[in-house]
Amino acid sequence: MTKIFNFCAGPAMLPEAVMHKAQSEFCNWQDMGISVMEVSHRSPEYIDMAQQAEQDLRDLMEIPDNYKVLFCHGGGRGQFAAVPLNLLDDKLDADYLLTGQWSKSAVVEAKKHARIAETNIMTETADGKISVQACADWQINAGAAYVHYCPNETIEGIELFDIPETGVVPLVADMSSTILSRPVDVSKFGLIYAGAQKNIGPSGLSIVIVREDLIGKARQAIPSILDYKVQADAGSMYNTPPRIVANRSNPTYLSRPR
Amino acid sequence: MTKIFNFCAGPAMLPEAVMHKAQSEFCNWQDMGISVMEVSHRSPEYIDMAQQAEQDLRDLMEIPDNYKVLFCHGGGRGQFAAVPLNLLDDKLDADYLLTGQWSKSAVVEAKKHARIAETNIMTETADGKISVQACADWQINAGAAYVHYCPNETIEGIELFDIPETGVVPLVADMSSTILSRPVDVSKFGLIYAGAQKNIGPSGLSIVIVREDLIGKARQAIPSILDYKVQADAGSMYNTPPRIVANRSNPTYLSRPR
Repeated sequence: MTKIFNFCAGPAMLPEAVMHKAQSEFCNWQDMGISVMEVSHRSPEYIDMAQQAEQDLRDLMEIPDNYKVLFCHGGGRGQFAAVPLNLLDDKLDADYLLTGQWSKSAVVEAKKHARIAETNIMTETADGKISVQACADWQINAGAAYVHYCPNETIEGIELFDIPETGVVPLVADMSSTILSRPVDVSKFGLIYAGAQKNIGPSGLSIVIVREDLIGKARQAIPSILDYKVQADAGSMYNTPPRIVANRSNPTYLSRPR
Repeated sequence: MTKIFNFCAGPAMLPEAVMHKAQSEFCNWQDMGISVMEVSHRSPEYIDMAQQAEQDLRDLMEIPDNYKVLFCHGGGRGQFAAVPLNLLDDKLDADYLLTGQWSKSAVVEAKKHARIAETNIMTETADGKISVQACADWQINAGAAYVHYCPNETIEGIELFDIPETGVVPLVADMSSTILSRPVDVSKFGLIYAGAQKNIGPSGLSIVIVREDLIGKARQAIPSILDYKVQADAGSMYNTPPRIVANRSNPTYLSRPR
């Protein structure tokens, strides 16, 4: 068969070695005689694997100890709603940097819960060139509950390489299309989230990396599947976790960026 | 290898023929040279497969034309929140039949949005026998937005075989552990939902079968991933759909109950 390369920003290619390993253990995971999809998420083997996956992500991204790593249902779009519902606390305002379709979609969800200041930091010149305002020129509201941005807008092809400086206001980033592609200083963020299907693995899983002091302030009406405290307390197993395949001693579904 | 049988109510066994077929096409779906997990959900091949999956479910369950079939993220627990957020409309009340832990968990989510009448229809006698009140004795509130029940409580091992009569009040059922195990008259329900991982396929997907007149009345603050109208309008592709494996001409991941 001819190898196909997929450069799409949607569901992305997985490494061949990962796919072949996943295929080989598809019906017989860890010599248990069943698939990882069929095994109970309360079994020691599954829990070991899940903990190892978290530890691998922590190691790869050098995630500080005061951050929780959550594996959730609901995709990146679920996080568009989860972020305001968890982080607004008693505040009325949040700031969103507008750079393209993904940040606009995040704003649509956030406006259901808060007064959203949309800061369009892109400027299009007469000849169609797009430039980004200098970070120092952005009007960040010091009273905002958080500042949200999407460092890479796959639809427009716009990427921000600098991390915005937001002072004490927590910075939230939708890293669905950049996570694990390069080193990132997690401590500069209050929260990072990413749908898994672009850079990490199959669709159906989203990853949330959240500073602990931002957990536990969710609005009363939040659906529990979106509540970071519920997910953190349940070790990301409030839902039956989506899974495809993994190996305890050699986790294969995380790409190594360095 | 010795075949393992898993009778757990959690992630369930998938048919061997399904697993072997999924394994064989894991890296090369429909001779496209890539996995179904890697292919775009906007591609004609994927859309054909998704439409065929819906049609197969419609055929198997004889789902009437005035019902939508939605494939969603968020599991059964996501639906615990989605049901009140979509169906309450301008009503204040909903009725929940209490039969065990799953219906109790559904009540926890519903109470965030409405006044919930919990009807405990189970009676435990002194010698530990559990009996169910006759349907005629249940106090159904004619002004309720809907009546919710879970026909099979896997934790307690309690099953209701009769379908509650609720008159004009829409009946909602969490069928996660009964769907596709027997014929069911869908027209008796306003809404049926099920996490896929117990009776249908891998975890990460939930199925919603909802009568069309109940769609489009969601509360303003609903997260879009839980909004039936958003999902229906998007052909269940508001999110990147979770997927594992399927074949267009011979869908293999639905068990055949009859």
